[in-house]
Amino acid sequence: MKVIIKAREGMGNVELAQRPVPEINENEVLIKIRKAGICGTDFHIYKWDKWSQNRIKPPLIMGHEFAGEIVETGKAVKGLHIGQRVSAEGHITCQKCKLCRTGRGHICNDIEIIGVDRAGCFAEYIKMPAMNVWPLDDEIEDKYGAIMDPLGNAMHTVMAQPVSSRDVLITGGGSIGLFATAIAKRFGAARLVVSEPQPYKAQLAKKAGADEVINPLGDNPKEQILEAFHGRQPEVVLEMSGFPSAFQLGLEVIENGGDMAILGIPSEDLNIDMGKYVIFKGITLRGINGRRMFDTWYQCQNFLKGNSSFIDHVITHELPMEDINEGFRLMSESKAVKVVLDF
Amino acid sequence: MKVIIKAREGMGNVELAQRPVPEINENEVLIKIRKAGICGTDFHIYKWDKWSQNRIKPPLIMGHEFAGEIVETGKAVKGLHIGQRVSAEGHITCQKCKLCRTGRGHICNDIEIIGVDRAGCFAEYIKMPAMNVWPLDDEIEDKYGAIMDPLGNAMHTVMAQPVSSRDVLITGGGSIGLFATAIAKRFGAARLVVSEPQPYKAQLAKKAGADEVINPLGDNPKEQILEAFHGRQPEVVLEMSGFPSAFQLGLEVIENGGDMAILGIPSEDLNIDMGKYVIFKGITLRGINGRRMFDTWYQCQNFLKGNSSFIDHVITHELPMEDINEGFRLMSESKAVKVVLDF
Amino acid sequence: MKVIIKAREGMGNVELAQRPVPEINENEVLIKIRKAGICGTDFHIYKWDKWSQNRIKPPLIMGHEFAGEIVETGKAVKGLHIGQRVSAEGHITCQKCKLCRTGRGHICNDIEIIGVDRAGCFAEYIKMPAMNVWPLDDEIEDKYGAIMDPLGNAMHTVMAQPVSSRDVLITGGGSIGLFATAIAKRFGAARLVVSEPQPYKAQLAKKAGADEVINPLGDNPKEQILEAFHGRQPEVVLEMSGFPSAFQLGLEVIENGGDMAILGIPSEDLNIDMGKYVIFKGITLRGINGRRMFDTWYQCQNFLKGNSSFIDHVITHELPMEDINEGFRLMSESKAVKVVLDF
Amino acid sequence: MKVIIKAREGMGNVELAQRPVPEINENEVLIKIRKAGICGTDFHIYKWDKWSQNRIKPPLIMGHEFAGEIVETGKAVKGLHIGQRVSAEGHITCQKCKLCRTGRGHICNDIEIIGVDRAGCFAEYIKMPAMNVWPLDDEIEDKYGAIMDPLGNAMHTVMAQPVSSRDVLITGGGSIGLFATAIAKRFGAARLVVSEPQPYKAQLAKKAGADEVINPLGDNPKEQILEAFHGRQPEVVLEMSGFPSAFQLGLEVIENGGDMAILGIPSEDLNIDMGKYVIFKGITLRGINGRRMFDTWYQCQNFLKGNSSFIDHVITHELPMEDINEGFRLMSESKAVKVVLDF
Repeated sequence: MKVIIKAREGMGNVELAQRPVPEINENEVLIKIRKAGICGTDFHIYKWDKWSQNRIKPPLIMGHEFAGEIVETGKAVKGLHIGQRVSAEGHITCQKCKLCRTGRGHICNDIEIIGVDRAGCFAEYIKMPAMNVWPLDDEIEDKYGAIMDPLGNAMHTVMAQPVSSRDVLITGGGSIGLFATAIAKRFGAARLVVSEPQPYKAQLAKKAGADEVINPLGDNPKEQILEAFHGRQPEVVLEMSGFPSAFQLGLEVIENGGDMAILGIPSEDLNIDMGKYVIFKGITLRGINGRRMFDTWYQCQNFLKGNSSFIDHVITHELPMEDINEGFRLMSESKAVKVVLDF
Repeated sequence: MKVIIKAREGMGNVELAQRPVPEINENEVLIKIRKAGICGTDFHIYKWDKWSQNRIKPPLIMGHEFAGEIVETGKAVKGLHIGQRVSAEGHITCQKCKLCRTGRGHICNDIEIIGVDRAGCFAEYIKMPAMNVWPLDDEIEDKYGAIMDPLGNAMHTVMAQPVSSRDVLITGGGSIGLFATAIAKRFGAARLVVSEPQPYKAQLAKKAGADEVINPLGDNPKEQILEAFHGRQPEVVLEMSGFPSAFQLGLEVIENGGDMAILGIPSEDLNIDMGKYVIFKGITLRGINGRRMFDTWYQCQNFLKGNSSFIDHVITHELPMEDINEGFRLMSESKAVKVVLDF
Repeated sequence: MKVIIKAREGMGNVELAQRPVPEINENEVLIKIRKAGICGTDFHIYKWDKWSQNRIKPPLIMGHEFAGEIVETGKAVKGLHIGQRVSAEGHITCQKCKLCRTGRGHICNDIEIIGVDRAGCFAEYIKMPAMNVWPLDDEIEDKYGAIMDPLGNAMHTVMAQPVSSRDVLITGGGSIGLFATAIAKRFGAARLVVSEPQPYKAQLAKKAGADEVINPLGDNPKEQILEAFHGRQPEVVLEMSGFPSAFQLGLEVIENGGDMAILGIPSEDLNIDMGKYVIFKGITLRGINGRRMFDTWYQCQNFLKGNSSFIDHVITHELPMEDINEGFRLMSESKAVKVVLDF
Repeated sequence: MKVIIKAREGMGNVELAQRPVPEINENEVLIKIRKAGICGTDFHIYKWDKWSQNRIKPPLIMGHEFAGEIVETGKAVKGLHIGQRVSAEGHITCQKCKLCRTGRGHICNDIEIIGVDRAGCFAEYIKMPAMNVWPLDDEIEDKYGAIMDPLGNAMHTVMAQPVSSRDVLITGGGSIGLFATAIAKRFGAARLVVSEPQPYKAQLAKKAGADEVINPLGDNPKEQILEAFHGRQPEVVLEMSGFPSAFQLGLEVIENGGDMAILGIPSEDLNIDMGKYVIFKGITLRGINGRRMFDTWYQCQNFLKGNSSFIDHVITHELPMEDINEGFRLMSESKAVKVVLDF
């Protein structure tokens, strides 16, 4: 079968290759990929950043966001059938530890991620444990099925605290930030402000539902934010950028007693005046990782059934899988947000 | 009346003085002080640390923890009467802002604290707004009434997340850490470990209910903690010390998905690897300030009625008010934890 | 001043009358009424039902939902000023009990309600304790200010459990049910079905945001509901009708683990098979009373600022205050939902 | 192998019999039973009550609470080994439905219970799906392992709302009520009152930690309860008896805003004045079923490690398995609470 691999260490080195179709065991299914999304993580692997250097062992079939069709089922698999349209949770958990046994597999320590620790979905076929498979509702098109993974990151972050009737600041307008914008608006955020310096993404944030977008690299971003909230302070901050300055900005503007959910992984240590910004303000900070299995997936399914129009413009490009490097090029030039590949 | 004042700027300078008995308005009561606790905050003012230099305007009547008796009531005051034994919430809130109007006055921005921003309780008499007064239950002796404020800080911290049947680490065995130890044990913490370097406090932590006390300045505190938890990781960390190293230690040992409540105010900025310790671990951090009005007070009242023996040894000294400087001396030599003054 | 009173016991007996303008004390304000809503409670008093016979002592100035303008402030009042546009919480609480002191004044046992236990707002002027006053945001018109009380009942009910991305059934399409429909939809309910037999209200429920409205008096309402949810079961039921059959229907269709909030007061005891419908299904039932002070008011304010169009059609009539009996006539003929009186 | 069966319909008819040792599939383990508890459910089957008549198809191997040792493991089983001491969750869930996929398998609709719907544990051997197996900690003796199922029912009920520092009423002092008493006390209930008419159980409730036990069949039980709480009203009620009168009593005495968890299955429909007791009081009612998988099991494990002495006296008898009918006789004469059988 045709696959996309990180062929070897170093910047770039993403190539087409041939591999045998995987064989499944009794608890697995084989899925023919139809569409797959390029994630920021794939882009990190492409660029071969520090994290990739520590984690990735090339050659590796990349990719972890997809929609496809079951073509074979292991003999112990129940409730799934050949021909079924599916996506899947890409985090394969141990199922034995306390976290897995108490509904928190998303933070299991003994995890394997497709396209990171084992063969991914940038391939004609992938094998998946039956329990990771997510059947796609008829109302959800393949291209939306292919982005349920990052939509789930956004959903997990938004649902980490109430947003209905609360003022919400989202720092960072990448694909997950934009998805979060669409979700938070749809869930009744009172006033929703996005902080994003790139005009291209700022404009998409508006389309996704932001009441206002401010430029954190402009003059006095703190003042801009308070003005955008009509003098109020946001009760919720969703940190989606990974920039230490965005994190600090969030802490400064958030209202006392507010909730801050942190998804963006900072490239360096953060310096925090914990007394001033967290203790005296009575702030709650929540680290967000992955998607709740499978609460988040149900929420995304419900969201997509009525609201795909809100996120449609976040999928800026659809390309044939052969054009993977074109996808990376668009991303590196900030000309694309979410790129979906056709297989 | 006789009072204890911070007479002027600089280390020490705590003196006895005479002041007129305060006059009350229609919504206030006048309270004759019986006993008052010396708080770590008072000790900061005594030492004239950076925080004190910024906040305190001497001369100032010190003190904010007390038990006393109402001797006069304003004419609009209802439900309180002369002769009633009382303590009081020392944070006087604005009652107008959104935080005050939604049950979160403890993080009101427009707050005055007795003994910090206005005359305190190290005095024969203090005036208090009626709404701040806490009637003392007959079962609660004056000396326990005098420490309901710091007990409340501990209660607020413990109650910020569930502790029943969970493994709990408390970093810091000062008075609030020791109160928290007693509370967490009494509320069914599974295994309760305290991290405290001073042998005197370590031994009190054991008496308060710690299953084990480790020395964070000893060899490999991380290993010590995991051993003390029999190889498990704590699900809850209560940071009571303000030491950046204690904060870091808590982040390293806490179990994925755990809850960390932060009361101890660090003297400097913290450096946090947010990705590794908060995001990937899915940790929740909560800044804790003051006491919930008056949820925390009800909880403390209930706690004291059945469990004063658990906290009795934390009140290491009772001194006549004239011996205030002896109290500070004992504290500075780490020979006292909670000192209660008799008025 | 001109007022509307329940003049004496018995059906009807609602009359115009003259009364002196109230005098205020130092903690009160005097408000000139501009608009006032007629509530279902007023209609009960008009009809002189059992509840009214037990609770109401005529003659009584009726009414508890209003918007007006402050014309005088007591000398101890801070933060309010003459000329300010306001609404007010009509439940006057004791401020002394445990419930009041822990942010739960809405269920205080020692409560006085305007228009029920003391003079109401169907009058040119009303006096209110300053702490009950709710300043109206400039963006909120008087007519919306006049219905913040029932909107708050709806908000309190919707906010009693998460609704975002969950299937919601609302039983009862009176004014509060219709407000709840608008709110739940705006807060991201996945699929929202209303059960309401009257075609007039059913049609308003559609306008307020219901995906489908079923007729509970039609054939097999249970089947109708499951069909309306596309074969799923609602995760949330909001009971707004007070009909025992609606309550039973909710219990039958709700998904295991679901949340049911109950606002509608049944006219008779309910018969519940607790084992089958509550225990084995793992259901949570919450009784809802009044509005949280003042969390619910902030939520309503935020809601009204962006979404008044969703509730506009619920205010079916505006009448001069002299036409109060015409309002009751329209309500008794089910030709009106929310009637607002002009003063 | 030797087993205990419900041989045929009707009262009694519980007999010893011989059956072949079960064969396991690749995802199952075979367990040699060491000790098994007799549950109230077994007693219902013995008495052949209405529920049993509808659900049970004799002949059936009875029993669902046990501790044993793994003697064989299916080839796909990981993380379990021969010789391991284990208990198990007796509810075998579908693993496919939304409830199972969102951590709520305890209310899965497609459930099989051992000893009810399939062969139980009153046998020398039982086969169990590996995922239902609960490894026993070394510190937990077999006899406590054998009662983790009902202890889990109690834990699930207590943990359904906070109990620390709150006044708690438990109606019903059977084995689960007594376990709940021990747990609630250990988790810091402020004042803990049990309502139980039988002197034998009342006395055990005291031993388990009740501050007071009242007799609901005595004069004015409502007054008794308020007195036992020193004039306060309980904030939490745990209904463990199934008696409609106990449920009603709980609703009458519970404080406004209180939490009521309902485990006891009433034998008939309840009549509830929903307006008076639930809506105006702002009460939350939660139906409790089974044990959370496996949150509740971790909580029980932690509880047993430090507190088995609190529940020791609830296990009133240990009998050889051959004496099963003697166990039922003791239960029917109210001379036993929890009977554990030796295999």
